[in-house]
This record gives sequence, C-alpha cells and structure tokens, in this order.
Amino acid sequence: MNIDGKHYRTIWLKEDDPTTVQIIDQCVLPYEFKIVDLKTVAEVATAIEQMQVRGAGLIGATAGYGMYLAALNAPAHSRAAFVEALLADGARLKATRPTAINLAWAVDRQLTTLLDITDLDAAAKIAMALAEQIADEDADSCHRIGLHGVSLIEAISRRKQGDTVNILTHCNAGWLAFVDYGSATAPIYEAFNRGIKVHVWVDETRPRNQGARLTAWELGNHGVPHAVIPDNAGGHLMQHGLVDLVIVGSDRTTFTGDVANKIGTYLKALAAHDNAVPFYVALPSSTFDWQIRDGIKEIPIEQRDAAEVRIMNGLNMENGQVISVLLMPENSPAVNYGFDVTPARLVTGLITERGICAANEASILSLYPEKKAVIGEHVEG
Amino acid sequence: MNIDGKHYRTIWLKEDDPTTVQIIDQCVLPYEFKIVDLKTVAEVATAIEQMQVRGAGLIGATAGYGMYLAALNAPAHSRAAFVEALLADGARLKATRPTAINLAWAVDRQLTTLLDITDLDAAAKIAMALAEQIADEDADSCHRIGLHGVSLIEAISRRKQGDTVNILTHCNAGWLAFVDYGSATAPIYEAFNRGIKVHVWVDETRPRNQGARLTAWELGNHGVPHAVIPDNAGGHLMQHGLVDLVIVGSDRTTFTGDVANKIGTYLKALAAHDNAVPFYVALPSSTFDWQIRDGIKEIPIEQRDAAEVRIMNGLNMENGQVISVLLMPENSPAVNYGFDVTPARLVTGLITERGICAANEASILSLYPEKKAVIGEHVEG
Repeated sequence: MNIDGKHYRTIWLKEDDPTTVQIIDQCVLPYEFKIVDLKTVAEVATAIEQMQVRGAGLIGATAGYGMYLAALNAPAHSRAAFVEALLADGARLKATRPTAINLAWAVDRQLTTLLDITDLDAAAKIAMALAEQIADEDADSCHRIGLHGVSLIEAISRRKQGDTVNILTHCNAGWLAFVDYGSATAPIYEAFNRGIKVHVWVDETRPRNQGARLTAWELGNHGVPHAVIPDNAGGHLMQHGLVDLVIVGSDRTTFTGDVANKIGTYLKALAAHDNAVPFYVALPSSTFDWQIRDGIKEIPIEQRDAAEVRIMNGLNMENGQVISVLLMPENSPAVNYGFDVTPARLVTGLITERGICAANEASILSLYPEKKAVIGEHVEG
Repeated sequence: MNIDGKHYRTIWLKEDDPTTVQIIDQCVLPYEFKIVDLKTVAEVATAIEQMQVRGAGLIGATAGYGMYLAALNAPAHSRAAFVEALLADGARLKATRPTAINLAWAVDRQLTTLLDITDLDAAAKIAMALAEQIADEDADSCHRIGLHGVSLIEAISRRKQGDTVNILTHCNAGWLAFVDYGSATAPIYEAFNRGIKVHVWVDETRPRNQGARLTAWELGNHGVPHAVIPDNAGGHLMQHGLVDLVIVGSDRTTFTGDVANKIGTYLKALAAHDNAVPFYVALPSSTFDWQIRDGIKEIPIEQRDAAEVRIMNGLNMENGQVISVLLMPENSPAVNYGFDVTPARLVTGLITERGICAANEASILSLYPEKKAVIGEHVEG
C-alpha cells in the first residue's frame, strides 16, 4: 500500500541492517507516522502486547520475524541451549495475545523448521528466509482474497445499476492488520481500483478505535469514500437499507465456521441477519483453527487492561499533541474483553485466498481438502 | 437522589428566585458538578440542544419549565401577542430534539392550559404550577416504575438463590434522565435498597458516553456495584451467561411496542433475543406515542453534529482540566444518528408506572384503556 506515494508493507527488514526488523507504530496513527526498530524477541513481544503491531496477519508475520530474531540471538555452541532458547522465545511470543491463532501458527512453523536443522550456524539465515516467506504468503493471500471478494461487490453494483455499494466493516482488517492489502479491505480496494462506486461505513471500534484511527486512515490514504460511525450505529443503518454488505476480518475461525473477531462483531452479524444483509468474513487460511469445533465454548477470549476503556488517546487540537483523557468517574471500574465469537449460522460466507465458501465444515473442507486428515486426528484423539 | 448526602432533583426553581430555573449541567459530569441558571426560553432551548439536560423525562420536565418562562416573559397586554409568543416559544422548544416525544407532550400540555386561560396576568402562576406538576408526576412515575420493576429482579435473585443479579443497561435512563429515580435504574435502585445483590453492566454509549459519564456516576454515588463496558461487549457477555436481565429506557415508544432509544439499543435487543436474556424497557406513560403504529418507519431519528463522533471530551489527568481530543484522521467524515428503533418483537416487556405489560397494542392498552379512543381517532382520521 502507498503512503504519500511511497509503497510500504507493515513490517520489513531494515534496508542496510537485516538484523533489525522495522514496523509502523500503529499506536500513534493517524496522528503520527512513526517507524520503530525491533532488535530482540523481548521488543517484538512488547510491540505485539502494546499493539504497535496488531491484526491477525500482521501478528503472525511479526511472530515469524520474532522467531528470526530468536534464531539470530540463540546460542549456536550447543544444540540443547539453542533448543531451550528457541522454545522459551516461542513461548514468550505465543503468550502475548491468546486469541489470535496466526501467532501460534507462525511460531510453530518457525520452530518446526529450526528445531530440525543440523547446522546451527545456518539457523538465522533459514529463519530469516522463512520469516520473509510467511510475510510474502500473507500479502499474496490477501491479494487473492481481494480478487475473489470483489465479485460480491461487483454483483451488488450491477444489481444497483452502478449506484454506490455501501459496505460496513468493523475494526481494522485492512492492510495495517496484515502485511499488505488487508483481508476485509482487499475486496474493497480491488473494487475501488476497478472503478466500482463504493462507500465504507467504518465502525469506530471501541475501546481502541482501530476503525476510527486505522481503517479510516487507510481508506483516506487510498481515496476510498468512507464515514466513521459509532459502533452503536450499524443496526440502524441496516434497518434503513443503508448497508449492502458487511465484510469483517477474523482472528481465529474454526473449521466449522465460527468466527472470533474484534469485540462487537457478533452484534453486527446479528443485525445483518435480522435485516437480510450479507455478512462475509475475509481471512487467509492461516487464520483457520483446524482443531476447534465450537468457537463460543473453546476459543480463548483475551481480557485486556481496563485502562483501555477508561482512558482514551486523542489529538489535542490546540497543540497537536497526543494526549490521554479519562472518560468516566475515577472510581468506576471497567471490563475489557478483546474479542467475541460470531456463530457460523450468522455468517453468509468466508472469503479466503482459495475462493469463497459457506461457513460450515463441509464447505470449508471442500476448499482445504488436505486438512481433512488433521481434523480427523484431533477428533479421534 | 442524593449527591454527597444532599437530596437533588435534576431541575428545580431557584430557592430565593422563582423566575430562575436551575439544572445540573450534564455536559461536565462526572468531572464537575455545576448548577446552571436558565432565565429565558432561548437559554432553555440551548440547554436541551447542547444536552446540558437530556433524557426522556428530563427533557419533558425542562420543556414544562421552559413554557413557564415563556408565560412569564410573554406580553400580557394583548391576547394575540400572548398567543403568538407562546406558540413561537413552544415551536422553538419542540424543534430542539425531534425524537424525544416527552418534549412535545410537555409543551402541548402547557399550551393547552395557557391558551385557554382568561386572565393573562395569572398565566405565569398557572404555568409554574403546571411545570411543577409535570416534574412531580415524572418523579412519581419513576418511583412507581421502580416498585413494579423490582419484582423482575427479585424473581431472578430467588432463582439464583441470592447470587448477584447482573443487569445490563444502555445510555443513561437514570435519575439524571428524569426528574428523580430514573426509569431503567428505578428498579435497580429499589432492588439495591432492599438488599438484593445486583451488579450493573454500564454500556459506555458512544458517541456521548452517557453510560460511562452519567450512569456510572449515578450508580457510584448510590453505592451500586457496576462496571463500564464498551458498547461492543454486551453480546459476548450474554453469550457467556453474564447478563441476567437488560433494562433500558426509551425516548418514544409506539402503542404497538416499538421502542426508540439511544442508538445501539437495537443491537443489545438482538443479542438478548439470541441468548434468551429478558429485555425490558422502562418508561413513564408520557413516553408513549399513541399516534404511531410503525416505529421503524415513522419515528423521526435525530441526526446530530458529526463532531460528537470525531471529538471526545475527557479529563486531562495531568492538570484536571476537561479537554477535547480528536479521535480520527482530520479529513475523515463521521455520521451521527442519535437513536434507533427496537421492534416490539425483540422486547420482553414494558415497565410502566401502572405495571408491567407485553410490548404489543392489546397489552399496552390493557394498562391504558383510556387511550383506546385516541388511537381510534387517528386511525379513522
């Protein structure tokens, strides 16, 4: 994606120093465009926890680069010490965000490769290549999600005889949540680039305002018409025919079609269902959980610091400084769940890099037939 | 209700100067407790528009006092001039908030009385008495809503063998939204006062945060256990059995049971329905619209300034000042609908000052049989 005409990914190796990973600090967007250097696994873990990087795909890619830094810094004199260091670093990274499955997926992918190699001195090079590959695959998957998903928008545009297609999205499943393109936004960018008239309702997405801060910023940079709305507004808009399509991302989707995504997604799915608005979830296959059958019962839901609800960052318009303000009585407690799970019955379809399928086991496995064996193993075990 | 041990209503005549109406400025709560003087209809209208006073019952009571100020300041030398002034002031007040029906109800009630009187010099005294009566009736209705509604909480408490009853509410339908007691909160205060264990999930209620700022402040002052949650969280809580009961207020309810309330209420009603959580609406009869059959099609929904979404007030914790911060890219637009309509099919019941009824025409009219004639008139006309 372009920022002021320059192409960026959300994570990359520093041009003249491949021992440094660079990211865009998403905590200070849209007020400031700041690039941050990461040199250790500890720094990577903190960046994930503090959500300087966030979003399903980008968390996975960051974990991939994190394991590269782990390999780079692991002792090469002893296999036991090497293995111990890598396992500890992997565990540290996995502990940062419990709901996002891409995180564990990327860490395990690196571990599977690294714990098998014979020449420990080659570990860093191999891990770097794999980190780059994970990032490339993420970008490629998102690009394909856009190519598949655009057909939904094109069909609505035709039905509306070229009138604007109104798409609602929640949180940021844009290119900032991935390495490039985004998941939910990929079909929107593709449609916009093809000249289809689109307008995006951007859910603010409290408490961290990823919609208002990040999705609006992305769409604005790309020139896509949009308006930010409070999370409360989507139901009213759908009741009045002002939403043609909902597309959201996912942090984990079961092989049965239950979708964990940013808290509040379930409420939008209910409203879409009640008003016969198609509700699609866009995700690369790295977001599937092939082990879990019941998303509501089994997907762990992260509880975050209540301060994220109590205190909000924003731009002091008088002096251009980012400042924190308290939003409620000093003594009132707050509770902060990061995600909710939308049951498959409310999901019209899934947009993946291999195509669009219904949100059920048979349809998902028809796109990913090689996973049948994995699921079978678990159920029998 | 008490604040620091002193009893307050939300609106009253100044003790030593009955030509001045006093209110609590709800725009600066919970950071500051500030009493504001209103001396003219223009000041009253601005206070309603800027939401220094807000909430179904309080808007009605304020309009009642506003019409008292209108009568106080109207020319008494000529009936024509008197009538013209009162009608203009009534129209000015009605234009401030289109969704809240109590507003027009209170203005019309004053007009019906004042336009009929023969002695214009007595107008102000009569209008003052009627304004006080409207306020007293509102407080009395809310008190009765509490007495009826507490039975729902008692029943759940018994079923849970005395365990905490978790109640979710949206926006502020507390005593700050009325003259005293509140509507949705009245059963909660009553239960708490009777020693029943309750805990309230307080929806933050973006964009103006009436839940986080006002409901949390009210409940905290009264000692009721509560936690503020983002508007996005209610669905997840209900999925996991953490909500026993939803009680919200209403700004207008059709005689068929459709409920206009703060934007986002509909989403909570959908989630309650999907999880078999009882969803009740508490309202005094002044909130009923006896003319409208289809709430979604016919209730006008106020659109407010986008700045309420884009910019948020909060407390700068460094210096204790209330400050405004921008929450999104400077160039991104926002849209701000004030209310949505929850269809009657999602409402378990209505808690009124006359008792609890189902959200349908027959059940509502069984509590308000005298309204059958009014509805008939409209349908025939």
